[in-house]
Amino acid sequence: MPGIEFISIGDEVLSGTTEDRNFSFAAGEVVAAGLSPPVRRTSVRDNKKEIKDALRRAEQSGFVIVCGGLGPTPDDLTAACAADFFGEPLKSNPEALEHVRTALKKMKRRVLASHKKQAMMPESACVIPNSKGTSAGFMCESKRAVFYFLPGVPREFQAMTTGFVVPDIQKRSGAEKHSLKAVGVFGIPESELARKVEKMKIKNADISYRIVRDYEIEVRISHASDPKIVGNAAEKIKKRLGKNVFSVSGATLAETVAQILLEKNLTVSVAESCTAGILASNLTQTAGSSKYFTGGVIPYSNRSKSDLLGVAQDVIEKKGAVSAEVARAMAAGTQKRFDSDIGVGITGIAGPGGGSFEKPVGTVYIATIAGKSVADAVCGKFQFTGSRDRVRRHSVARALYMIMEAAQPKNGVKNGKRKS
Amino acid sequence: MPGIEFISIGDEVLSGTTEDRNFSFAAGEVVAAGLSPPVRRTSVRDNKKEIKDALRRAEQSGFVIVCGGLGPTPDDLTAACAADFFGEPLKSNPEALEHVRTALKKMKRRVLASHKKQAMMPESACVIPNSKGTSAGFMCESKRAVFYFLPGVPREFQAMTTGFVVPDIQKRSGAEKHSLKAVGVFGIPESELARKVEKMKIKNADISYRIVRDYEIEVRISHASDPKIVGNAAEKIKKRLGKNVFSVSGATLAETVAQILLEKNLTVSVAESCTAGILASNLTQTAGSSKYFTGGVIPYSNRSKSDLLGVAQDVIEKKGAVSAEVARAMAAGTQKRFDSDIGVGITGIAGPGGGSFEKPVGTVYIATIAGKSVADAVCGKFQFTGSRDRVRRHSVARALYMIMEAAQPKNGVKNGKRKS
Repeated sequence: MPGIEFISIGDEVLSGTTEDRNFSFAAGEVVAAGLSPPVRRTSVRDNKKEIKDALRRAEQSGFVIVCGGLGPTPDDLTAACAADFFGEPLKSNPEALEHVRTALKKMKRRVLASHKKQAMMPESACVIPNSKGTSAGFMCESKRAVFYFLPGVPREFQAMTTGFVVPDIQKRSGAEKHSLKAVGVFGIPESELARKVEKMKIKNADISYRIVRDYEIEVRISHASDPKIVGNAAEKIKKRLGKNVFSVSGATLAETVAQILLEKNLTVSVAESCTAGILASNLTQTAGSSKYFTGGVIPYSNRSKSDLLGVAQDVIEKKGAVSAEVARAMAAGTQKRFDSDIGVGITGIAGPGGGSFEKPVGTVYIATIAGKSVADAVCGKFQFTGSRDRVRRHSVARALYMIMEAAQPKNGVKNGKRKS
Repeated sequence: MPGIEFISIGDEVLSGTTEDRNFSFAAGEVVAAGLSPPVRRTSVRDNKKEIKDALRRAEQSGFVIVCGGLGPTPDDLTAACAADFFGEPLKSNPEALEHVRTALKKMKRRVLASHKKQAMMPESACVIPNSKGTSAGFMCESKRAVFYFLPGVPREFQAMTTGFVVPDIQKRSGAEKHSLKAVGVFGIPESELARKVEKMKIKNADISYRIVRDYEIEVRISHASDPKIVGNAAEKIKKRLGKNVFSVSGATLAETVAQILLEKNLTVSVAESCTAGILASNLTQTAGSSKYFTGGVIPYSNRSKSDLLGVAQDVIEKKGAVSAEVARAMAAGTQKRFDSDIGVGITGIAGPGGGSFEKPVGTVYIATIAGKSVADAVCGKFQFTGSRDRVRRHSVARALYMIMEAAQPKNGVKNGKRKS
């Protein structure tokens, strides 16, 4: 089978300031579709000679995904280089122009000359639809390879890769309809997870891993044609990993929590100190979240912890603002304040400063409460490592997992208060 | 000046499951050292032909950093390919062997045959010291380029890049200082921004654009050697774009807001409905944020808007929860509640449901207050387009910008309450 090659174009992808996530996204999609991983990845600057050089070299692979340089600014050179490379004139593509016009109209913006540049393509190009932005992508074929040119903006690139490029490669390469299942696993580091799955000696199915975020990993099981093989493998993984598996439907942890709360007619509210709203924003990512999310407090000062959440001042003084007692009281306080079935309290030291010998940077207490008394609250003490950002992300993922546990009937939640 | 090129080797860097952070680290170090960013990045599989092909092609750049494939397992092919490429025998290097022995002794592990493989190098190779692991790196010179071969393990790669490779390139290239300046611009779409900058006819300097997030764009001005050219161009852009420029230091909008609040000794608190904590998490990204951020409320229900923030029930009933009046009252309520200099209130319809003819999806009211009475509050009505996620991101960026404006003395803030 011909190989898939990846080229990204732009000074910014070489400067080291932006992590280029488009490649890993595309590679994950390619593998999930049952195709072989890309054979090569190249990043080049906004430089005509270097871009054309990369296109020429990539032709030896059968499929080439090119990303970036399709924008309206003068440093966007991809379309012009493509025309040169294919030996065709650069022309305004009517379909692409129509797309640019419609997209701008929706955004209530005028069509500028620079926008019209985004419709300029090699004469033989076929437009690749872009539902997420103004720039149109396009596809061109040489004798030896099919080239897909996509914008570098991640949400546009990703939608077009999933919606058009990967299915097109599958169709062209005659891949049989493949079967795929994604198992969501929480709480096991990637290397250990891979080792555990390897020991299960799953046969025939291809296994790959996608890190959704630290400790939240999607195990993707695929097979060229047989859904039974894939289903059995998913069952095996679920059985062996037990509670660490939160979903076999491809849903993320946040989506799974939302589904469970909706199904069980439960509501949740939060009190976030070190995570400062990240949990709330995760819980409200999907539309209709007001059905299960009632509100939150970000009590950065001790006073607001007692004023808004009823955490006793003497508990804060005796145990410290970062303590199990305060986390529990925060959970109970927000539950009461927002009249929710489940309350969550998070307090910790995200760093880099603020740590002590007893409570070093990365110490985080997370409490959930589902019953009626503070004594019903469940609290975990966690010691996360790494940057401020990483500590906050870990805390939020763990809190989501704990909300899922709190929603189990044995944990005191019986009937949801929510009227649906 | 000769360019710097980057090659990473290994099936795992192409599978999409691991994000390859070595490149962005190296690029960052290179730029920080005043050298020009890498000219190209290539990732290839564990395949002899493809590795040699990449080495050959990279030779046209003066410096080549090669990463990965130096380990003890059979799929580590880099040293053998290097020997082939340089036309030299592969030999056990005594210095490298000594390094492997010492490193393993420290870890209390025996020397296995597979470890000895790690000392095999092209005959002319110079060892690059590795303080963090067993594998030794090495350097080889061809007529046209210097090649640095480093292990792929991030902590080893990073230590060797910073400790040896970048200083060596600096020394050899007798580097003139590469000059770079980043101007942060808010509120102008990329295409329009590029058109405006183009009209300024900035000469000599290279201009590129990095989209930090929608409507927050970094204009990067660079020149091979002259900081004056770069400085003048930055001044010109700042003068022409006026209030849209929020920083000439490379700081993001969130970082700039934090700096201004710290400098002026001001505090801020938030009340976020549709953005549900995203603004708070943006404001608390950096350490020490408790100096200027006092807290927040996420009032998802109307009751919590009145209970926690004192928004009058009849205002909510008459004007609707999504209205300028409610946004102003939320800003004033959180300012009072958290005793902050500036209060921010956000209420809107993020979608995809919930819109009406009068208030369609994407309608967002953002209010800031810096004075003492609700009448001092400034409120903007915005009509954002796109997905729920996009509406929320746009709202947060706009709110950050409005906090910056509220921190101007003319807007009622005179002396910060914060004790520093």
